[in-house]
Formats: sequence, structure tokens, C-alpha cells
Amino acid sequence: MHILGCAYYPEYWGVERLDTDAALMREVGIDTVRIAEFAWSRLEPAEGTFTFDWLHQSIQAMQRHGIRVLLCTPTATPPAWLVHKHPEMLLQREDGTRMRHGMRRHYCPTSLVYRRHIERITAEMAKQTKDYPNILGWQIDNELGPESGRCYCDSCQQGFRDWLKTRYSSIAGVNQAWATGFWSEDYFDWPEIRFHIERRGVAPSRAIDMLRFQSEAWVNFATHQRDEIRRWQPKVLVTTNSMGMPLYPDIDQWSLFEDSLDVSCNDAYFDIAPMANGAAAHDLFRSYKSGRGHWLTETGIGALDHGRPPTADQFRAWMWSGIAHGADAWMIFRWRTCLSGQEQELQGILEHCGHPGHRFRTVKTVFQEVRHLMPELQALPAPDAPVAIFHDLDSHRLYMASRTGQDIDADPMPAYRTLWSRGVGVRFQRPGIAIPTEIRLLVIRNQPLADERQARLLDDYVRSGGTVLVIGQLGMRDANGTYLADPGPGFLRESVGVDCVGGMFLNGGAGPNSGLAPELREHTPVGLSGTLDGIPFAGKAERWIGDLQATTATVLATFTDEAYAGQPAFTEQRLGRGRYLWFAVGVCSEDLLGRVMEFALTKAEVTWRPRLPENVEIQYRGRWTFVINHSSTAQSVAINISGRVVMGHVHAGVTNLPPYGVTILEQESPT
Amino acid sequence: MHILGCAYYPEYWGVERLDTDAALMREVGIDTVRIAEFAWSRLEPAEGTFTFDWLHQSIQAMQRHGIRVLLCTPTATPPAWLVHKHPEMLLQREDGTRMRHGMRRHYCPTSLVYRRHIERITAEMAKQTKDYPNILGWQIDNELGPESGRCYCDSCQQGFRDWLKTRYSSIAGVNQAWATGFWSEDYFDWPEIRFHIERRGVAPSRAIDMLRFQSEAWVNFATHQRDEIRRWQPKVLVTTNSMGMPLYPDIDQWSLFEDSLDVSCNDAYFDIAPMANGAAAHDLFRSYKSGRGHWLTETGIGALDHGRPPTADQFRAWMWSGIAHGADAWMIFRWRTCLSGQEQELQGILEHCGHPGHRFRTVKTVFQEVRHLMPELQALPAPDAPVAIFHDLDSHRLYMASRTGQDIDADPMPAYRTLWSRGVGVRFQRPGIAIPTEIRLLVIRNQPLADERQARLLDDYVRSGGTVLVIGQLGMRDANGTYLADPGPGFLRESVGVDCVGGMFLNGGAGPNSGLAPELREHTPVGLSGTLDGIPFAGKAERWIGDLQATTATVLATFTDEAYAGQPAFTEQRLGRGRYLWFAVGVCSEDLLGRVMEFALTKAEVTWRPRLPENVEIQYRGRWTFVINHSSTAQSVAINISGRVVMGHVHAGVTNLPPYGVTILEQESPT
Amino acid sequence: MHILGCAYYPEYWGVERLDTDAALMREVGIDTVRIAEFAWSRLEPAEGTFTFDWLHQSIQAMQRHGIRVLLCTPTATPPAWLVHKHPEMLLQREDGTRMRHGMRRHYCPTSLVYRRHIERITAEMAKQTKDYPNILGWQIDNELGPESGRCYCDSCQQGFRDWLKTRYSSIAGVNQAWATGFWSEDYFDWPEIRFHIERRGVAPSRAIDMLRFQSEAWVNFATHQRDEIRRWQPKVLVTTNSMGMPLYPDIDQWSLFEDSLDVSCNDAYFDIAPMANGAAAHDLFRSYKSGRGHWLTETGIGALDHGRPPTADQFRAWMWSGIAHGADAWMIFRWRTCLSGQEQELQGILEHCGHPGHRFRTVKTVFQEVRHLMPELQALPAPDAPVAIFHDLDSHRLYMASRTGQDIDADPMPAYRTLWSRGVGVRFQRPGIAIPTEIRLLVIRNQPLADERQARLLDDYVRSGGTVLVIGQLGMRDANGTYLADPGPGFLRESVGVDCVGGMFLNGGAGPNSGLAPELREHTPVGLSGTLDGIPFAGKAERWIGDLQATTATVLATFTDEAYAGQPAFTEQRLGRGRYLWFAVGVCSEDLLGRVMEFALTKAEVTWRPRLPENVEIQYRGRWTFVINHSSTAQSVAINISGRVVMGHVHAGVTNLPPYGVTILEQESPT
Repeated sequence: MHILGCAYYPEYWGVERLDTDAALMREVGIDTVRIAEFAWSRLEPAEGTFTFDWLHQSIQAMQRHGIRVLLCTPTATPPAWLVHKHPEMLLQREDGTRMRHGMRRHYCPTSLVYRRHIERITAEMAKQTKDYPNILGWQIDNELGPESGRCYCDSCQQGFRDWLKTRYSSIAGVNQAWATGFWSEDYFDWPEIRFHIERRGVAPSRAIDMLRFQSEAWVNFATHQRDEIRRWQPKVLVTTNSMGMPLYPDIDQWSLFEDSLDVSCNDAYFDIAPMANGAAAHDLFRSYKSGRGHWLTETGIGALDHGRPPTADQFRAWMWSGIAHGADAWMIFRWRTCLSGQEQELQGILEHCGHPGHRFRTVKTVFQEVRHLMPELQALPAPDAPVAIFHDLDSHRLYMASRTGQDIDADPMPAYRTLWSRGVGVRFQRPGIAIPTEIRLLVIRNQPLADERQARLLDDYVRSGGTVLVIGQLGMRDANGTYLADPGPGFLRESVGVDCVGGMFLNGGAGPNSGLAPELREHTPVGLSGTLDGIPFAGKAERWIGDLQATTATVLATFTDEAYAGQPAFTEQRLGRGRYLWFAVGVCSEDLLGRVMEFALTKAEVTWRPRLPENVEIQYRGRWTFVINHSSTAQSVAINISGRVVMGHVHAGVTNLPPYGVTILEQESPT
Repeated sequence: MHILGCAYYPEYWGVERLDTDAALMREVGIDTVRIAEFAWSRLEPAEGTFTFDWLHQSIQAMQRHGIRVLLCTPTATPPAWLVHKHPEMLLQREDGTRMRHGMRRHYCPTSLVYRRHIERITAEMAKQTKDYPNILGWQIDNELGPESGRCYCDSCQQGFRDWLKTRYSSIAGVNQAWATGFWSEDYFDWPEIRFHIERRGVAPSRAIDMLRFQSEAWVNFATHQRDEIRRWQPKVLVTTNSMGMPLYPDIDQWSLFEDSLDVSCNDAYFDIAPMANGAAAHDLFRSYKSGRGHWLTETGIGALDHGRPPTADQFRAWMWSGIAHGADAWMIFRWRTCLSGQEQELQGILEHCGHPGHRFRTVKTVFQEVRHLMPELQALPAPDAPVAIFHDLDSHRLYMASRTGQDIDADPMPAYRTLWSRGVGVRFQRPGIAIPTEIRLLVIRNQPLADERQARLLDDYVRSGGTVLVIGQLGMRDANGTYLADPGPGFLRESVGVDCVGGMFLNGGAGPNSGLAPELREHTPVGLSGTLDGIPFAGKAERWIGDLQATTATVLATFTDEAYAGQPAFTEQRLGRGRYLWFAVGVCSEDLLGRVMEFALTKAEVTWRPRLPENVEIQYRGRWTFVINHSSTAQSVAINISGRVVMGHVHAGVTNLPPYGVTILEQESPT
Repeated sequence: MHILGCAYYPEYWGVERLDTDAALMREVGIDTVRIAEFAWSRLEPAEGTFTFDWLHQSIQAMQRHGIRVLLCTPTATPPAWLVHKHPEMLLQREDGTRMRHGMRRHYCPTSLVYRRHIERITAEMAKQTKDYPNILGWQIDNELGPESGRCYCDSCQQGFRDWLKTRYSSIAGVNQAWATGFWSEDYFDWPEIRFHIERRGVAPSRAIDMLRFQSEAWVNFATHQRDEIRRWQPKVLVTTNSMGMPLYPDIDQWSLFEDSLDVSCNDAYFDIAPMANGAAAHDLFRSYKSGRGHWLTETGIGALDHGRPPTADQFRAWMWSGIAHGADAWMIFRWRTCLSGQEQELQGILEHCGHPGHRFRTVKTVFQEVRHLMPELQALPAPDAPVAIFHDLDSHRLYMASRTGQDIDADPMPAYRTLWSRGVGVRFQRPGIAIPTEIRLLVIRNQPLADERQARLLDDYVRSGGTVLVIGQLGMRDANGTYLADPGPGFLRESVGVDCVGGMFLNGGAGPNSGLAPELREHTPVGLSGTLDGIPFAGKAERWIGDLQATTATVLATFTDEAYAGQPAFTEQRLGRGRYLWFAVGVCSEDLLGRVMEFALTKAEVTWRPRLPENVEIQYRGRWTFVINHSSTAQSVAINISGRVVMGHVHAGVTNLPPYGVTILEQESPT
């Protein structure tokens, strides 16, 4: 942990509050503020007229009080004069209407007109601030992506066609890639192709490419600004605040963070999702940028908007969990609750009236505790993570674009929860690169995409001793979502020792009283049974099962019902020094998946513990062990580590955690 | 009660039915008909060509049968030839499309083109009918307001800008009023400002002013027609039929009725809301026009549209309740069920086939009973109302425009129900005027608006001996919805003896499994306890609690949970001869609020009785007491009044009411 | 049964698969394929450039393997080049936006531009294929109707006005027909009339005519293509595949099939509706074309889309049920699951990978069983059907267009279910034609339309000995939905011996706590009681009851509650050699309706049996009896027929059916 900060809006509160606020910030423990991401109208009230006085005074005041600044480009909110002058840069909806001024993110991400104005404001900001020593770095825009909907303007139409030309060269190439022969989907000339969506499941191959094009457009939007900043501040740190609890499927964040920016940043509010998702978000964003901790660029102290805030102990548990998962920055949104505007009830550290209140006292207490340990925390290694979950945005896109996505998805959370609740540290694995051998187990959940290069990377990993556990679909479709014309799994049939000639979705059900509306139909499970390490294993498969024939694989369990009775449900195939396990079930209960996961962990020689109490987590960073109770009731956890109790209470190998309690242990050094 | 009437459509049924219908009207007890509010196409089939014969014959036929006429301007349904000639007068939706002919209220209320045509038809009608002795008065249009949606046309855009110029003088004034500093909300030139709504909570200050502008536009639409009518009939009564069960937040009806028109009129269908709302609607509309009873210009005998009609006894109970609450007119919609058109199943007094049926017989019985007592009823004083509920549309607008309105509101019904069910008569108090001292208790529920003049009016009232009971929010925001930059309640801190530094919404809740969708989150209550008049008092606060510090006030109860434990929940501050009570809880159970209300009533020396059986009401008009059972089961009520039993049965101080039964007592005159 | 087939897409799979596929088709038992209904882009890749090679090769390959071809016009999916050149032929939505290429049915059905292109492709196909001996016939387009929404383009606007001119001659005629006097609905010139719908219940007379106009436009769309095909192939069979489980209210299928095409075809998927609906669909489509069996042009073997498929036995039960109800063709959608496109998960007989799998084996088994009996099946007479249900699309339109349709409808299923579950064979009766005397009982359910000619046809039928059972509304409105200005039932008062002066909808209910939203209101039933054939009869009426006065009819039961207590609920009137029965109840329980139906069947001397187990059916075709168990549990049915057991097991007059089991018996010939 290096940064304790908050978002600050001097353009709103005025410069006369600067010293009052900075002094209170120091009191509460803040060392960094983020400023200016929505300030365009107060930086440039007319084209080419800059009013930067307040910005300079703000940076200087922070400098006087020893506070660093994460400076932002204000491009999330182009000012009224700009959009009134250039309505063609406004986001255009599918029905042809355009967004208007008054919200945020009301612009088209591909608009060249807008780019020209971005260049001017960004260059001016970078030029004018280049000599300040307390600039920590830059944030581009704010929460990039289609928050206000997708844009369908002429620029996006042309951009999509240009992208297709680059990818497929010709119309014939598009038709071939999209396999357009059904329903007269063939195209004959470029202008016939449009970026538009009728509804999910229509023209899925086109929809998948639209998602790819738009994701790339956002990454390009970011790198364009990065390059503009670097013209004036060549070595400055540049990032952007993204989102995901844990997934944000609209942007490929491997490309955004690992390939394009300097640090991975997440805006995460822990009251909007189960706690396991918050933990997974940390692990995912840490994985997005190799070799360094991630930043939490926004999190709440009041609950999001006008909800109920966390208790003081709960906020503390959130923060220690972040540290346990490797977060290097903890920035609260926001310093003071704004008096007006859309988010006027989204509570900051200070009340509307500017007085310190309950939330101020909570933050102060927790930040002091963290700061006290900061030198030690900064010396810790990255969190232990012997297991990786494969995370390929392309598989998500296949589900997002087609009707199967109503039934199953590539969400890693079912797998993550079974690991998190067993005290096993997790990282996420990017597709297309070699899989490190320190990963003992690689989990792949519902990966319909068949990719030859990835298949060889998996084989290399397994041959070197790795274990791959596949849950659900595997290798059924090409990159455009087209199903394979041969049995699957594509490029992996021999490796996994199984042929897959199809599968069966279990939604609906053709009973004599089945209703018309899909959402009302019964999701009928199919039974399965077998033996794992000598112990009987049985349960129910939901949503999808594979139609498998084992060629060389060992069958660990079979389906027991109906058409697929007797066919493999769970298989094992050794390859080199490792093995492939395939549990061909789309969705199942957490208990059943837990049995599968424990079997795989054991085979992969990963230490795991019986399921922890709900919402209690254990994480390891080198010799430090963090035990955190995210539940509102007291919990006891056995913890046989001899060493120093950094925090909490441990007695006779057990730590008793009060509600939202935290225990930290440091194991004795090996002598 | 002066008027027993119905809506009548001679333009639809033809003049040959006039005498048949009028004779049946007399038989059923009708003395007044409303005509012509949708008749434009049959009054002026081409521009400047008038076909008024049927209208003259209709008024004359009614005159022959001793029936008065409430004549209407037909502006709710401009004819097809007019909207086809001037499509620019059609209501324009936010997406730019316009309504078409075929519904009603398909016009823009600010269109100057439409005004010109309104002047012609209104003048012609007023000129041609000015000598009829049986014209009771005029109704303007029909149910003014955005029934068909809001209009966003160029005229409304310009109208909104002009309205802002008048209110704020300059763009800088707008920016200051709307506190535009967050999200680059600043404006630089008038054309950048648009009348449009993205969704609730976006640019709330702009949205509040849009609601004000539109409300004023409707009032202006009414006064324009009033003035046109008065040019030809200078002394005629002019009104319009508004709505509300009890609230209709789109138009400020204090301005509409008290300031602009001659009598307050409500269209109320008692099958669409709980009965307490129907009672409150009477009290509210009576309050809208000082010094005279209100009119029920529409009510149902069949249920609204094609629903099940009330039983005969139920219709009778509705009518006697209206009389108990001071209604002076009871007009049924409509004489006969129309054979065609959108409302072709909305049942009138006669069947489709024109025959008297069950509904005819019910109306006849009940109207005869009322007419028999009419001389006595007309001599009764207004309903007793020792308690007033403060009703400020601006506080509603604050909630309508911002996201807090998803959690709490300024609906008077929670307070009204506790009073109605305790036999306490209620009036409503308009803001901005002196509060009469005959009001013993003034109840203010969730009044976020801080207004200096109103604060002084409250203080004057309290100093003179009044009791003010505040429930929920008080004085937190300015007229544009901006929160105060100092502790609240604005302009009342010393008077109430309490500082409010903020508050906490209780929706959401930051539990470890809190879901994403706000509507799915748990609304966690906060406990409170104290002592009222020596009796323990405890319960749960929901939705919102205030962050209060008592300076000089007495604390009657405190919160017991979490961050706000020990802080005041209910306070009392004496001032002059009266007192302020503040129960700083947004929402709570009816039982808990009932305890608070009983405490306040007792302090204010208002007589109340223990809670009545559900849907039984007691109302007083001078020496008359009305006991009405709106439930479908028999009820007994203790009623210790010696005097004449006007209706129903009383034995040994108890009246036993059959289902939908009515008892009326006249207390002996003081000897 | 004459045809066992499937849909086949050689334009998608390529000609190299033709022989492989045809050989597998023969193996599975297929004798007919449907081709080309979506193939336009591969038949005509540019205007006037035809690429028919694959089509010729496909037809020839099928010929080689002894497989017939149902050839389709490809007009459901105009290609991208065509719609890009002529955007004015694209379907235009009510908001003015147009559909784009990428879905199907993206065209306007009245577009003359599109017609011109249709003529070219249709003529070319008919010309080039006219000499193939294995062309079974033609299918026009695919599932005609507003699948993608209604079109509101200028062509449709003008088409609607022209249609009105033809029907009503003048604007005055329109105003009179639509009874426009309420709400200034009068029209003054043609351009004021638009084809547009604000929402249900607005301008219902216009809406009814819009539905008629659009239905006729679709029939005209079909006959236009029929005539083009016949220019080149004068004697070829022409049809189209329609839909309905059992109703498809957007097109008048009596007109489509009986008047315009050669055979009645249904696309029916038995997993999307209760089994009784599937049975009714067979009977309805069989009735649409007199004198010949209907075709099932599409049905599923996988469940619709990506749902769970039926079990093998269930598919078999579906098929034998179709035969029992008279189906002459059974065509599976589709040969092989497509790899791409919107329906890429809609499973065909073959898997994605082209391998025979579970579904192939199921179809093969069942088709072999059917083919084995085919000579006998082809010799069977049509299904026995002594009872007819009256099916008048105009009554549906009245409900579709007005708000009453939220409460009741003209769906025949409540009546059908009581007959189907009692082993009574059903046909459907077209309005406007003489009713055959071999129909013993004619059931009419909720027929609000009053039509003089139809009334006389009913009287003729009754006088000749027929029994008419009316359930619910009868003869209340004219063809434009206008209610009668005299008591009803229109043109039948004397025949039925009852006057109806109105009625009461039972939705809503005017209780003291009735809520605002109609869908939340209680649907309060009304009691009724009487005696049928000496046995007490009682129950509850829902949704609607008639306000009846018996003039000459015998009253069998009366209402017992509230306003209508003592009035007739069920009446009987003899006329000539037959009788009218009227059960004036909109909706009631299946038990109560069953009692009414059994009474009517007995009077009409139709044999019926006590209610069968749920989802078990018995159907008769001459001397053959089919007993089919559509439930997932075993069932026993008494079946006293001496003769040959064609299929299944019968012992001591009882057949024990396994889950989805089928028993077929052939009665001994009379000696």
C-alpha cells in the first residue's frame, strides 16, 4: 500500500477552501488527491480561452501540505459550448437521436472532431503542469466505456467498416468469416454493412466483431490521450480508472492495462456485489498488469449514491482485504458530498455542510492503522496465487452476442468462489501467452472458443506438469462464433482424449405443459455419478451438458438420465507430466463444483482447506497471513501458524474474529 | 351539496334524444349537465364554420326540463382538420416524433398557433351562449396536464429559456442558481439550454425548474381561456376539472384554483385508490379554494373503464363521505355508455342500449335520499378541521427530480391516515401565507426546502400558540434543490433548537451479500427509543434518519443502532406559546407514527379517539356527525352524542353499521 | 400421412455435401425436402445475375435419391444489395425508423418496388425449374406476417386509405362506420387518416380496420406470388407455411388457405404450448382447407432454439397425435444444425458437425414405424369430428383492438380442452357459410360480433336439428366494434329467447382498498346455480357476465350475487328441431365449463367419455382409434373395442400406456 487518497473537486468548491480542505485531508490521513476529471467547463470556458488559475492554485496548495496529485484529462464531460458547436460529436443512438448535454459520457469515442478538441485541452494541461513535483501521474478520462449507451453515428459506421477491411481485406472475406449463407446474410458492398444491433442473437458473428471493434476504439481513445500527455511529460505515469466486479466485458483490459498503460486501476464499490466478487476484482486487476500492485482509484465510504454506508469495522475489513489481495492505492470517492448535480447524495468523507462527521472519523481511524504498518506492507511480496483462472474476453463476447448467453456464460465467479472459500489464492491468466509453471492448476470455465495457438500453449503447460481443469463448454466455435464442422474440442481432441459431437441445453424442456416464454420454462437438471479418489460422487448438471465420447481419457463420472445416460460427464487424461480434467457441465451447485475443484486441487498438489465460514477469507502474502471476516457475526477459524500476531487475537491455533474482524499473522522466518 | 349532475354528450347522441334523456335525468334526480368538452369537431367542422345548432337545442332542452349546464371549452381535443393544417401545434416527444390525431391532449400547451384557434372557438361559444339563464358556469378544457406526455417542441424550448431569463436574468444567474460546477454542467449561451429529461436524477436543478415552468404553462393556458370567456360573459363562474387522489404533482393547484379560478373541482374515482385517499382528496380540494365547498366534477357509478361497479350501498357511502367532507357538487361520468371510441366500455348511468338498468336505479335511490336532506345540508358549516397538513408542491418537485425521490417523498398520506383513522378533521395549508390560529396543529412531512419567509411564518404561528410537528426531512436544500453549505434546518436552527449536519438513507445497506440492483437491496431499519408522557416509546426508522445535535431542544427519543446511536430521533422545543416537535424519521410504521401523532395532538389540545376500525371514518360539520363504514363487513362504533339520529341506528351510545352503512347524528343545540 | 421431410439448406452447406446428405436422408426415412426459402442472396447476387447452379444440382441430387422437393420463393429475406438500393422497401416503424438488413422479414408487405423484384426472382425460379418431375410444389415466402413488427411507411398509409375508400366510399362513410362523435374523432379529408396505433384501446374502430387491412395485405402478398408461379407452372401445388398454436390472429387463414392456396400448412413446435393446443392446431389447420389433410411444414426434433429436446418416445407421441388428427405431412426443421447465423443453436436432425447422433436415431426409429403402416394410414378417412367450434377472426379483432381484450378473448381453447379431454373429435367452423348438419353441436365462445347473415345461418342450422352452445358474449357489437344501440343479442333475440341489455366486467372491483393498476386488482367472481338434467349445478363466473332477461327461453341457472342476483346465467331455447343454449359467463373454471359442455353434448346426442387423465387423448379416424399418452407417467384407459391391436397393448378392455405411449386399435368391420 503506497497511496491513501480521495477525489477532490476544487473547481466546484472554489480556491478559498483549498487550505481548509488540505489541512483536514492531512488530519484524516490522505496523501494523494485526484482532480479535474470533470472540470473542462472551468478550464476552458470558450474555445482556446483557458482559466487554469484554480488548477495551479490547487496543485500548489496540495504541494504545500505534502499531498500528491493524480491529474485527469477532463474528457468525460465535454462542455456545453463544445457540443453545441459540434453536435456531430455527440453520441448517437440506434434510432438516430443524439444524447444531449447534461449527463456525462455524451460523446462518440471515434469522433475525429472530438479528438481535435481533446488534443488542445490535453496538451495545454500537460504543458502547464509539467514542472510540478507533486504530480503523481495522469488519469485519462473517467470510467471509459458505453455507460451512456453505444454510439451508432456515421463515424462509428465508417470506423467499423475500416476495421473490417483491415481484418478481412474484402467483402468476400467478411462473408466467409461470418459464414453468411443462412437467411441471405451475404454482403456485396461495404456500405451495406452497418454497426447496429437489432437484439441479442441476431447476426451473432457481426455482433461479436462489433464488440471487438468498440473495445479497440476505447483502447485507442486512451492511447491517443496517453501520447498527447507524453509529448509534454515524457516519463509521467499514465493510467485510467476502469471498472469490474470483477468483469467489465466492454473493454479488453489486458490490452488496456498490460499493453497500453502504466498501472491497473479499478473503481470498485464493495456494497454493490457479494464480497467474493470484490476479492476477485482485486485479483483480476492485479493480474491485468504484471509485476506491480493495482490501484483502487475509487471506492465508497458512504454507500454508493444515497444508500446506507458500511459500518466503521466493515470499511476496515474492506481495506485490509484490499491489502491482502495486493492493492497499492486506496482512493475514496469523494472528499465532500457535492451540494448539487446528479450525484448530490453520493456521500463523501465530509458532509454536505463541510463538517467532519461519522465518515470522517471512520476513515481517519482506519487510515492511521494502515499508515502505521505501511513500511512493512510495502515490503510484502505479491499475494500467493498457485491457481489461475483463464480469462478470455473473446469467450465472453461469444456469449454476449448469441442466444446461448441467456443460458450460460464465461463468468469466472463460480470457479473463483470455490477457491476463495477454500483459502486458495488466485490469479487470472491472459490467453495467447505461455502459462507459467508456478501455476499449479489452471481452471477454464465455459470456453467455447477453439484456438489452435492457445491449444498448443495449454498442451505445453500440461506437458510441463500443469493441471488443467475445464468446466463446461470447450473448443466448440471459431473466433467468429461459428460452430466447428467437425467434432470438438477444437485442436484439443487428442490432448483431452475425448470427442465432443455436440451438447444439449437443459433450459426449456419439452414437457406437455411447457410454456411459451423461455424464462418461465423449467430448467430440468440431468443426473451424474461416479467415483473420485474412491469416494462416491453424484449430483445434477444444469443448463448444458456435453455429448462426449471418451477415446483415450479415463471416465471419472457419467450422466445417468435420458438421452445421454452412460456418457462421460467428467474425464481425466494424462499428458506428459500433467493432466487434463474435463467436467462437461455448464452450471451446477456450489457443493458439486466444490467436489470437482477439491479433486483437481489435490491432483495439482495445491494446499486447500475445508470450506471457510461464509464471507470469511484467508489470503497469503509471503510469510503474512490475513484472515478477514466480512460477515456481521463473529467467526472462529483454525490457524496453525507460529509467529507474530500483527493484528487480532489468536489462541491455541484458533482466531476468534468479531463481526468484520481482521487477524494478521506473520510466520516465523525459517531459521 | 348544491349540484347533482352528470356529463352529457348530445354531439354524440344527436338532438333527437334530448327530451328523452332530459326526462330520464329528472327522474334519476339530476339537475345539472356538463357538455361540450370534447365537441370541437362538431362545433367547428372547418375553420370559421360553426355548427352550433345542436348546442343551442341542447341548452334549450335542458332549460325546458329545469336542468343547468356547465359548459366546456372543447380544447382537450383539437379536431383532425386543425392538427393536420398545423402539425407544429402537436405535442412533440423527446425523440422528436409528434403525437397524432386519435387520442386526446395531443397538443402543445405553449403553442401560440393553438392559442389563436382556441381564442376563436372560445369567443364564439361565449358569444353565442351569453344569454342563456341556465348556464351554471364554464369548465376550461378537461383534466389539464401531461396525460399524453410532456412536450419538447421548439415553442416549449423557447418558453423555458424565456422563463429562465425572467427568473435568473442571465446565463451566469442560471449557472449560479443551478450550482453547475460538477460534471461541466455550466452553460455559456441560451441555446445550449434545453427542456429535456434524460432520466430521474440527471441535472436535478434543471429538472425542478422544468417542472415549475410546465406547471405555470398549464395555469397560463387556463387563465388565457378564462379571460377569453369573460370578454363575453364577464361575471360567469369559470373553473376547470383537475385531478388528484389526493396529489396531482404536475400543476400547482393553489395557483390554479385559489389565485385563478372560481371553484375547486376534482375528478375522483373512488375505486382506484384506498378510501383514505379519497377522503384526503376531498379535504385537499376543499382547501384549494378558501371559503367555499369543492365540486366533484367527475366520479364513477360503473367502475372506471370496464371494471366491476360498486354495489349500491358502496356508492351511497362514497356520496355521504363527500358530503361529510364538504363537497358541493356530485357529477357522474357519464349519462350513457358510449357505443364507440376509446372509452366505449366506461359505463355511464344508462346502458349502451339507452335503457335504465341497475346503475340507473342505484343513482336514483341515492340522489333521492340526498335531495330530501338538501336544505339542511346546504345550511351546514364547513367540515371541522383543527389540524392542517402543510402542502408545498416545491418539496414534491425536489423529490420528483432527484434520486432521493426513490426513497422518500412529500406525500401527505402517511400523516393523513393517522389523523383520519382517529376521527380528526384535516385541512391543508398553503405555503407562503400566514397560518390561522384556529389550526391547533400543523403537520409537516418531509419538507426538504429551506425558505426564510416560510420559516418566519412558522415561527409566528408557533409563538401564537400553534404546535408544529415535523416528520422526516426539514430545511436541507434551497429552492433549486442544492443542499445547504451549512448545517440545517435552514432558517430554523434556533427555533427548533437542533442542528442537523446531514442524514443517512437506509436503503441499500452495505452487507457482504448486498445485490447490485437498488430495488433488490434490503431496506434496513434503525432502532429508536424514548419516553412520551411517561410511557415507553420504541420502534424502527426506515428510509432516512437525520444526523441531529440538540442545542436547546429537549430530546424525547434517540436512535439506538450503529453510527447514530444516542443521537436525537424526536425533539421538542417550546417557542412563545407553542412548540416545535421534530421526528427525524423519513418513513416508519403506521403504529409508530400513530404514537407520535397522538402525542402531538394531545400537546396541541386536539380531541382524538382511538384508532377506528379499518375504512370507517367519522367527520364533523358543526353539530352534525357523520359515521361511514367503507368496508364490506359490519362495524360497531361508540358514539356518545345526544340528539337526533338523521340516518342509521344508534343504541346505547353505539352505532352498528352494516357493510357500507352510514349513520348521521345531529347534536342537540345548546340550550 | 404422405410426406416425411425436412428443411434443407444446400445454399449454406454447399453442393459437395449433396449426395452424402441425400443418402443419410434416405437412411433416416425422409422422402421430401423443402429448399430455398432464405436463399435469395445465393440465387441472385446482383440484380438480374442468377446463380442457380447449386439449385439445379440440389434438385437433381434429390431426384437421384428419390426425394421430392418443396421449392420456396426466397422473399422472406431480400438480400443486402436490394434493400441498400431501395431502402423505401424496408419495414418502417411507427417512430419513422426503418428496419435494417440482418434479420428476416425486414420488408414492407405493400411495397410496389419490392413486388417488382419479387416478380423477377419468382418468375426466374419457376421458369428454370418447370421441368423437374420431383417438384412437389411451392411454398411462398416463410411464415408470412408481422414477425418483425408492423409497417407504417407511406405505401402502407396510402394502402390503408385506398382500402377505406373501397370499403366506405367517402370520409362521411368512414366517420359513420367508426362512429366518430366522441373525443372529436371525426375526419374531414383523407390525408388526416393514418395507419398508426398509439396503444390498445385508442380509436378501436380504426384499429380493427387496420388489422383487417393488414391481414388482406398479407393474403394479397401471397396470391401475387401464386399467380407469378402459375404463369410458368400452371398446375403446380402452391401453399405457404403459416403458424398458430392454434391461433395466429394477424392473418385470416380461412381466406389464405381455403380461398387462395392448395393445402393448409402449419409450422408447429410442440414444446412451446400445452399439448391440447398442439392438438387443436391440427384440427384448426385441417379445417382451414376442406377435403384434404393439412401439412406440418415445420416441427422440432430438438426443442425450439437451444432448449431441451423431447425424449424419443415423446417425439413419437407427437407424431402419432398428428396422424390421429389428420396430418398428411411431417417435416422437421431442419436437416442439420447451422454453424452460424441467428438460429445457430436451433438443433436439426444432424449435429453441428454433420454426424448422426441421438436425434438422428430417434427420427429414424419413428419414421420407420410410420412408413411401415403408411399404406393403411393413407386409406383412413378424415378424423371424426361431430362437434365444431366457431372460429371468426373478426371477433378476435374486436378484442385485439379494444380494452375489453385485456379481460376476455375469443380463444377457442377453453372450449376445446373440455372436448379434447372427453374424447370428442373437433373441427372448426368458418363464419358466413352454411353449417353442415353432420355437425351435432356448434360451440361459440365470446362472439361479440352481431352479423345478420350469420344469425340466419345459425337459425337454419338449429332448425335443421343442430345444437348451438354459446359461452360468454354474443352479438353485442357491429363489425366496427361499435356497441348496439338496442338490446342484444343482435339479430338473435327472438331465436335465443333472451334480451341482453348489457353486462358487467368483473375485473377490478371497487373495494375500499382497490389499487390503481388494473393488473393488480382482484378479479372477483360472481356465483351462479341451477339444475341440469335434475342434478344441481353451481359455480363461479369470472371476467364478464351478461345482463339477461329471458323472454321465451327456459332458465337453467341464475346468478346468485349482488346486482344480477336472480337473473339468468344459462338458458335454453328450442327452435325447430334443435336448440340454442347460452351460458352467459366470460370465463370460468374447467370443471364448471365441463359440466356445461357435457350437458350440451348429451342434448346434441354426441358420445363423450368422462374426463381422461391429463394429457391423454383419444381420437378416431373411421374404424381406427388412437389413444396417446402425452404425459411423463404411465396411464390406464378403458377401451372397449373388439378388433385388431395395431400398436400397444390392450387387455380386458384396458390399455396400459407407458410414459408417452401410443395404442392404436382397429375395430372389426361390420359383418
